[in-house]
Amino acid sequence: MSVYFPTRSFQIYQTFAANTNLGKTLFSAGLLRAAATHKKVSKLFYLKPVQTGYPVDSDARFVDSFVNSKILNTRTLYSYEKPVSPHIATDKPPNDKDVLSRVKSYIAECQIQLGSNDEGKLILETAGGVNSPIMSGTLQCEFYRPLRLPTILIGDSKLGGISTTISSFEALHLRGYDIPAILLFHDTEYNNFQYLKEYFRKYDTCIHSISPPPPKNSAAEKDHENLRDYFSSTSQDFQAILKQLNEWHHLRFDRLESMEKKTMKKIWWPFTQHQRVKNVTIIDSAHDDFMITFNRNNDSEGAGQVQMKEMFDACASWWTQGLGHGSSKLSLAASYAAGRYGHVIFPECIHEPALDLAEKLLEGVGKGWATRVFYSDNGSTAIEVALKMALKTNLKRNNIKDEDAIKQATEKEFLIFGIEGSYHGDTIGAMDACGPNVYNEKVKWYKPRGYWFEAPTVYLKNGMYLVDIPKSIHPDHTNMTYSVPSFDLIFNQDQPIASDLVKIYEDHIGRILSSCIHSNKYQFGALILEPILMGAGGMKLVDPLFQRVLIDEVRKNKIPVIFDEVFTGLWRLGCRSGADLLGKKPDIATYAKLLTGGLIPLATTLTTESVFENFIGSEKTDALLHGHSYTAHPIGCSVARASLDEYEEFNKNSLHWNTAKSQWAYNENTSDGSNKEPIVWSFWDKEVVHHLSHLPKVKGVMTLGYASNASQAIVKELYSSFTSKNFGIYARPLGNVVYLMTSHITSPTNIRAVEEKLVECIKSSK
Amino acid sequence: MSVYFPTRSFQIYQTFAANTNLGKTLFSAGLLRAAATHKKVSKLFYLKPVQTGYPVDSDARFVDSFVNSKILNTRTLYSYEKPVSPHIATDKPPNDKDVLSRVKSYIAECQIQLGSNDEGKLILETAGGVNSPIMSGTLQCEFYRPLRLPTILIGDSKLGGISTTISSFEALHLRGYDIPAILLFHDTEYNNFQYLKEYFRKYDTCIHSISPPPPKNSAAEKDHENLRDYFSSTSQDFQAILKQLNEWHHLRFDRLESMEKKTMKKIWWPFTQHQRVKNVTIIDSAHDDFMITFNRNNDSEGAGQVQMKEMFDACASWWTQGLGHGSSKLSLAASYAAGRYGHVIFPECIHEPALDLAEKLLEGVGKGWATRVFYSDNGSTAIEVALKMALKTNLKRNNIKDEDAIKQATEKEFLIFGIEGSYHGDTIGAMDACGPNVYNEKVKWYKPRGYWFEAPTVYLKNGMYLVDIPKSIHPDHTNMTYSVPSFDLIFNQDQPIASDLVKIYEDHIGRILSSCIHSNKYQFGALILEPILMGAGGMKLVDPLFQRVLIDEVRKNKIPVIFDEVFTGLWRLGCRSGADLLGKKPDIATYAKLLTGGLIPLATTLTTESVFENFIGSEKTDALLHGHSYTAHPIGCSVARASLDEYEEFNKNSLHWNTAKSQWAYNENTSDGSNKEPIVWSFWDKEVVHHLSHLPKVKGVMTLGYASNASQAIVKELYSSFTSKNFGIYARPLGNVVYLMTSHITSPTNIRAVEEKLVECIKSSK
Repeated sequence: MSVYFPTRSFQIYQTFAANTNLGKTLFSAGLLRAAATHKKVSKLFYLKPVQTGYPVDSDARFVDSFVNSKILNTRTLYSYEKPVSPHIATDKPPNDKDVLSRVKSYIAECQIQLGSNDEGKLILETAGGVNSPIMSGTLQCEFYRPLRLPTILIGDSKLGGISTTISSFEALHLRGYDIPAILLFHDTEYNNFQYLKEYFRKYDTCIHSISPPPPKNSAAEKDHENLRDYFSSTSQDFQAILKQLNEWHHLRFDRLESMEKKTMKKIWWPFTQHQRVKNVTIIDSAHDDFMITFNRNNDSEGAGQVQMKEMFDACASWWTQGLGHGSSKLSLAASYAAGRYGHVIFPECIHEPALDLAEKLLEGVGKGWATRVFYSDNGSTAIEVALKMALKTNLKRNNIKDEDAIKQATEKEFLIFGIEGSYHGDTIGAMDACGPNVYNEKVKWYKPRGYWFEAPTVYLKNGMYLVDIPKSIHPDHTNMTYSVPSFDLIFNQDQPIASDLVKIYEDHIGRILSSCIHSNKYQFGALILEPILMGAGGMKLVDPLFQRVLIDEVRKNKIPVIFDEVFTGLWRLGCRSGADLLGKKPDIATYAKLLTGGLIPLATTLTTESVFENFIGSEKTDALLHGHSYTAHPIGCSVARASLDEYEEFNKNSLHWNTAKSQWAYNENTSDGSNKEPIVWSFWDKEVVHHLSHLPKVKGVMTLGYASNASQAIVKELYSSFTSKNFGIYARPLGNVVYLMTSHITSPTNIRAVEEKLVECIKSSK
Repeated sequence: MSVYFPTRSFQIYQTFAANTNLGKTLFSAGLLRAAATHKKVSKLFYLKPVQTGYPVDSDARFVDSFVNSKILNTRTLYSYEKPVSPHIATDKPPNDKDVLSRVKSYIAECQIQLGSNDEGKLILETAGGVNSPIMSGTLQCEFYRPLRLPTILIGDSKLGGISTTISSFEALHLRGYDIPAILLFHDTEYNNFQYLKEYFRKYDTCIHSISPPPPKNSAAEKDHENLRDYFSSTSQDFQAILKQLNEWHHLRFDRLESMEKKTMKKIWWPFTQHQRVKNVTIIDSAHDDFMITFNRNNDSEGAGQVQMKEMFDACASWWTQGLGHGSSKLSLAASYAAGRYGHVIFPECIHEPALDLAEKLLEGVGKGWATRVFYSDNGSTAIEVALKMALKTNLKRNNIKDEDAIKQATEKEFLIFGIEGSYHGDTIGAMDACGPNVYNEKVKWYKPRGYWFEAPTVYLKNGMYLVDIPKSIHPDHTNMTYSVPSFDLIFNQDQPIASDLVKIYEDHIGRILSSCIHSNKYQFGALILEPILMGAGGMKLVDPLFQRVLIDEVRKNKIPVIFDEVFTGLWRLGCRSGADLLGKKPDIATYAKLLTGGLIPLATTLTTESVFENFIGSEKTDALLHGHSYTAHPIGCSVARASLDEYEEFNKNSLHWNTAKSQWAYNENTSDGSNKEPIVWSFWDKEVVHHLSHLPKVKGVMTLGYASNASQAIVKELYSSFTSKNFGIYARPLGNVVYLMTSHITSPTNIRAVEEKLVECIKSSK
């Protein structure tokens, strides 16, 4: 592995400027010059990734010449002759990945040169202003974001400089950079320094002003001499800045190193048996699919040392991630809504983000069935809302009046139908809609209120898709398995075996429904299910045929159908919703998790006009009296809207999605032999998946869209080792299943690296 | 009322520039010049609120001279001689309120000049860059934010101009401005226009470049002639821009006007009987305590016309608002966390925002009792978590093993103690913890699981504080009322009558507890209560003495105590928590609403180490298996941390808070006659409150911190009329109570205006 993050002994900073020509290079030189006099410092580095106007201008040469120290190494990675912005300086822009990779390599190289205990400093100098583009056209502040280096912002002392300095600070701030120092030249006329000093008091940043350099002398030698004098005269100032940077750096590391202990004492984690936790993962920041973690290194080499590391987020942060961590698109959408509204009251009111999102959902996942959107905060509350909608709808459909219902409630208990192993959330109402399981067995107020069908499940073994039908379903009460060669056939109602299965399913379900519905003790008010894939229940793929039959049979009894699409909805399975894969429409459906692209909590419950109308009446108490303080908060709605737009754009135009789809395409059934667009597809490589399914240690593999599972033995190894791409893999166990999940933007290169590591870990596991 | 917002026929724009000297005035002149040729336009206005370098520079003069039209009126409000930033141009800066008020007056004056059906346009030109300060030092983009005028951003075509243009756009965007146009000069060398055009494609903004003006000619007359020619030659360009602005403006109004109908069809509001809704409040934006609404004007004058209006948010947007809507502090805190992390997985992990907030809470509301913080999404989920914590704790305290508990559950039902009329949220678990009421009576899965004590309540009538003791409590089963002259005495345990009351309360509570706890049917697992004030249950103030006795008595039976501080906590009642007012510590407490300053959902459940330890065990199922996808989301935690810091700062140093406290100070009990810091105080004026309490139509008044209630008859009148400060009042009814609530930043001036209107409405009500 190579290290390209700061360590306790290796301080790394980047300089960004509020505009061009504010003295970035001069400040870099001054700081390195000051550092060179420190006895403890054994190496100094200056990196100019992109130089334009070269060779007339060479910031590295300038730094070299004025620092003039043997311990300094300078490097320029890309240089262009035109003195213009990098994006127009070349016709053949290198791609961002290559540039970033060279930057990382240089830093890693510096780390090696330095050795692990020596002290060193590196300054990386950007080009132009914070929001200037690099060669590819990507904004610089976004291009450098994966490293999130502590930033020295060079401010502007001229007229208007207060504005450009603050705006630049904000541009960096909203992209999650830390800015330990702001430096600018002194100017007595405008005295921006005075204002800015006061202004930035509220931030963890210190601000210094330094005398401006002497005016340029046309004689090169004289100019050089003037500058040498200038550096001598300002060396105390630069020492002072260096001292503050140094303090900031060590405070940061002190804080990072103290976090584990404090966390163990003060935090109560969800779903966690604290007694088993040996190690806290400190997340310093995150970008795209990666979390930058700060961990004790428990490997043989460097025991006890802490290090920062890129970890691939293979649990998609509890299945929430769609657009990657720290997306500036979402951040800007959130900021705008925060700035325009904050939060505002919702009942009897409306604001654009809530209405826009509602319309978007009704035209998307709700198309063809839903007409109303109800907002809440998370999957669990969305389910509670859905249940309240469904139970009342069932009463109304059966013409049972409120008074009678209240009377009846004392006689008949209200239950729901569901599928065994399903999971709908952690509030009591959502829990009661699930059968007894490990999550609820010790919860005092949990009370199972339903009948849950055992369901046939599907997985890939030895290259074949197996459908496992439990005893209870089969008329002879024996286990039954059938297999098909292609995943798509599982979803195909016209496959040869389908009609036999439908018969078996219908008989079984019909028998149970009939006895339930004629019960004197119970009234069944809803069917609730996760279409296709049961998430927290163990990442089980349910035979779609079974769910289809179940829905049809239940509907014959005026029972409304709820789809819990919190996990399956919004492109998690490679299509807009689980309902699409299933080919069935619900009466009520819930969406959360991916809804906000992985940024903040928001949930929606969609439903039909006929369900809505059951709550219309002359009494206030006829209404759905459910609401949360932040209902339809504008930030969540804006971010959700932006996320849905992105997913759809990916689905239409992403090369990466199209490539993934095409490798899952098949040609079995087309008359002309051409490949057919697959119903189901995956980011995971088809061959690797099949290969895994042949391994004796693997019971079965299942992949769909961006989720897949694998056996548990490998989690720890994934965490502590590195892929060929130099990152670790953060996976979460789920009972005895380990699943791997990506976001919608995960690159093929990174998926290949994860797959490679996965196969390696499984093969080497004991 | 005066109107200072755009209307369909009156377009208003402000110009902001990416830096100084980019041609703001020239662009303003060009646009007004183009508008002057339109026949439909009957009036044009140009407003330069602040002019520096005057009279040498006068942008108004420049505009006048080149537009040269009779229908143009120009105005400069403040002018200063020094050609520097406004904040150093004067030693006597006018305060922001006065400046804003003059800007509003000018616009309102223009509206009157224009008449309601004529077409007009106004351009307001700012000074310097977007983040340049005005005279007081406030950033311009924040100063002008209350009007949120559509903005024309003048971009920068020079080297580095891409960066300053994008950064300026972002500074405006994150403050919630709409930017229909970006204008800049054409430049063939850097061609920033080309890049920016591509970049801004994703935003609802159009971008134009225009030939740069001729170089300045030292001969004034020749210079003028050159510029006249320049304007002639570019008039087509300006017409094109004007056309696009025009389209944008009408689209905006089309959208606003269409929202009511769409909302009625697509949205399902929380807690709303849709049949009763006659009118949708369209919220276009919000700032501080105000929502800018867009409504059909149903008044006699101008029937059917739509108008934008400032509405005072007197329900504090369901009690969430602490720092005002659209606070840039919170917006920046949110942006930073979004940029740094997005959301990241939480179990067994930590990030700075979650740890910082936990520490802050433990040192604040948790001080002296709590050691652990559990995160969830809203008050209701925080309560579900609290209940799970409490019920298990009760089992452990009674040494009941899990197996036995499960067995026992079939024999004994697990119940809680509470107070009648309390309200804890809308998920089934939280509902079950409340007694039967209008919110739950028609919810099918609701099942009351507890015993709820009737409690004595307190209100102000005829200038005296009355404690109303219900029959059930009194030994003789008669109603009893006692009164004290000062609010503080209610909280004073040493007041003369206290010991008698304590005796009555102890007897009553002891009797009930004894029969409950010896029941064979039930096991009592927790006491849950809202300290001091019951919110959604009707804004009832409970006699603190009663709650104190109840807590003491319950604790004798090893029953843990939960404080639901979702409404009462975090300075809503003028002190850090309801617990502080009560003088009691809970075992478990929940916080939400104000936690994030009114921006996004986040909740916490705090508890003691002894409660936490009940969930430690060898089994995973011993743990608290509750969690939400976005648990401890970094944005929420960062924003909450920033909010708590602000509240504390207000409490220490806010002149406004101190003034409010001092008017509630009293001198009854101090030996030296000096005023004593009050235990309880309010933003509402003591005299007005007492005056209200004497009105025959008023049953009683209650004020505390930032909440107060008043009789319902006045809500509608508050909504549709205007205060002396030219804003409406948005209040929400709560059953038969109307409460008024402020944020923590509400200004005394605005509170006085609300009070004045309130008294007026009550007196004139039928």
